[in-house]
Amino acid sequence: MKLATYKDGTRDGQLVVVSRDLGTAHYATGIATRMQQALDDWGFIAPQLQDLYETLNHGKARHAFPFDPALCMAPLPRAYQWVAGSAYLSHVTTVRAAHHIDLPNDTLETDPLMHQGSGDSFVGPQADLHCGNEAMGLDFEAELAVITGDVPMGATPDEALEAVRLVALVNDVTLRMVAKNELPKALGYVQSKPMTAFSPVAVTLDELGDAWDSGRVRLTVQSTVNGRKVGMCDAGTDMAFHFGQLMAHVSKTRPVRAGSVIGSGAVSNAPTESKGKHEWPKGASCLMEKRAIEILLDGQASTAYLKHGDSVRIEAKGKDGQSVFGAIDQEVTLLSQT
Amino acid sequence: MKLATYKDGTRDGQLVVVSRDLGTAHYATGIATRMQQALDDWGFIAPQLQDLYETLNHGKARHAFPFDPALCMAPLPRAYQWVAGSAYLSHVTTVRAAHHIDLPNDTLETDPLMHQGSGDSFVGPQADLHCGNEAMGLDFEAELAVITGDVPMGATPDEALEAVRLVALVNDVTLRMVAKNELPKALGYVQSKPMTAFSPVAVTLDELGDAWDSGRVRLTVQSTVNGRKVGMCDAGTDMAFHFGQLMAHVSKTRPVRAGSVIGSGAVSNAPTESKGKHEWPKGASCLMEKRAIEILLDGQASTAYLKHGDSVRIEAKGKDGQSVFGAIDQEVTLLSQT
Repeated sequence: MKLATYKDGTRDGQLVVVSRDLGTAHYATGIATRMQQALDDWGFIAPQLQDLYETLNHGKARHAFPFDPALCMAPLPRAYQWVAGSAYLSHVTTVRAAHHIDLPNDTLETDPLMHQGSGDSFVGPQADLHCGNEAMGLDFEAELAVITGDVPMGATPDEALEAVRLVALVNDVTLRMVAKNELPKALGYVQSKPMTAFSPVAVTLDELGDAWDSGRVRLTVQSTVNGRKVGMCDAGTDMAFHFGQLMAHVSKTRPVRAGSVIGSGAVSNAPTESKGKHEWPKGASCLMEKRAIEILLDGQASTAYLKHGDSVRIEAKGKDGQSVFGAIDQEVTLLSQT
Repeated sequence: MKLATYKDGTRDGQLVVVSRDLGTAHYATGIATRMQQALDDWGFIAPQLQDLYETLNHGKARHAFPFDPALCMAPLPRAYQWVAGSAYLSHVTTVRAAHHIDLPNDTLETDPLMHQGSGDSFVGPQADLHCGNEAMGLDFEAELAVITGDVPMGATPDEALEAVRLVALVNDVTLRMVAKNELPKALGYVQSKPMTAFSPVAVTLDELGDAWDSGRVRLTVQSTVNGRKVGMCDAGTDMAFHFGQLMAHVSKTRPVRAGSVIGSGAVSNAPTESKGKHEWPKGASCLMEKRAIEILLDGQASTAYLKHGDSVRIEAKGKDGQSVFGAIDQEVTLLSQT
């Protein structure tokens, strides 16, 4: 099924069930009002939501209405845990190669890079992308995330996968120039990840069909800026650590509780080689990586970070050509800041 | 006023108002059932809780019952944001001096060290302290934390202080040997901070009286292991960045939403000097710093990290000798782990 949260003036919004084709929706009132409620008691609530979903898909839900992504908050508007990985190693290696930065450690391929984020800063698919000024280096990062149930401490990757409840697309917004000052402090991101935007709907694994491959999502993530392609990256191919491995990493020393959100990191594909030269035919899922590719190919970056009025669109389509999660579609506004 | 959350089998527990002397309590039912509800709508709900608090203190609340810290969850059992600082620089400098580690950067005194944590792992004051095995280096960290309302983006330190709602004591449990492997990855803590325990009650600023000094808490934080003193540290003296400064740091690039928890980092006092030698008469608020002091004084650490059956107690008393927040009082259990 597909679930969304509609704005209603409250911090948690109203849970709605959305039809497979994203055409219609229905309030889940009477079953659960908030997404966290459903996650807290998934075994009891999910089957009721699923019944409503089927009725809706058959055009028989009595109070259905046209679904409007503009009215969506993040499917889970605030979360008790947000941990993002860097599961696509080519994202890390390409950026570091361009800037002659040594790789972080010799365990890159065995021990996932992950960092804690802030769960109070989730926004909907059409929320303005804002930052104080352009000098902060505003960038998007297109990635996938899973929303979990309870994961017991010490779960294996396979056991962890049992706790995946929903999958969504994410724009993990990053201020690259703020990060440049923050990362040398070696404690992760506090100021440089100011908001995390989510696709209109989050979907259960059965919606992905064959595209859900034991913890990897075999879909193409399309990223555009002002309608021009930045990336058409295969999310399934080069994910070095699948979601079960990322979840097992987080739950190694403690239980992970329902409503935690685990991100993949920017989707990225390894370069191909032609006549002894590297090529990146799939592009990238963020401007930092696009700029790194430009530096490696041309000696300098020609793409600027986001500016006032730019638009960013992130989407993934199924085999049938239909949008799976709906589109993240945000416009950049710059706010003056004291 | 003093607020706590009683266990009731749910993930969020039941909000209770606790008398100033921690002797009696009263369910806040009819005003708010969950702490997050009160934080989301503080202006409306807090005055009602305050009325109940005054009635309770006068012995006139009709359904009052004896307050039992053993029945407490964390005052806010799960939070949408948990960011901890290292506001006491002597904690950082003492540990690094003992291990000959260069200081993190040249902005230590102007740019606070902070890291994002996990808000789904909060536990009550008497929750078992557990970890897989002793080799993980289980340690406590006694600190203070504020629970906030909404903080606007770009708030000054003084403006940020206006959003402080509650103050509590915290045990920021840390696995030192896990951190040793995690910190070189330079992205903060994912596995090495497995749980965060809170004092039985969180208190509003007026409860602190003179001890609340423009963002600093002038109380002595007492830490003991198995009843023996580890530290009697002054929380007000050597806090290089006060809570308003920490909150302004976090909200520099984004709004911080109600129910965020901001920690001070381990309370620590700078060493005194006597006959050309450093001394630490106040002790420390964690075993890592105690061990560092031993290394600096004696050439080696004699204190071991926590073992099965050890107990940790953290408390702060007011001028009147009464416990302000109640005590964190935890016992170590080691769990076998697959």
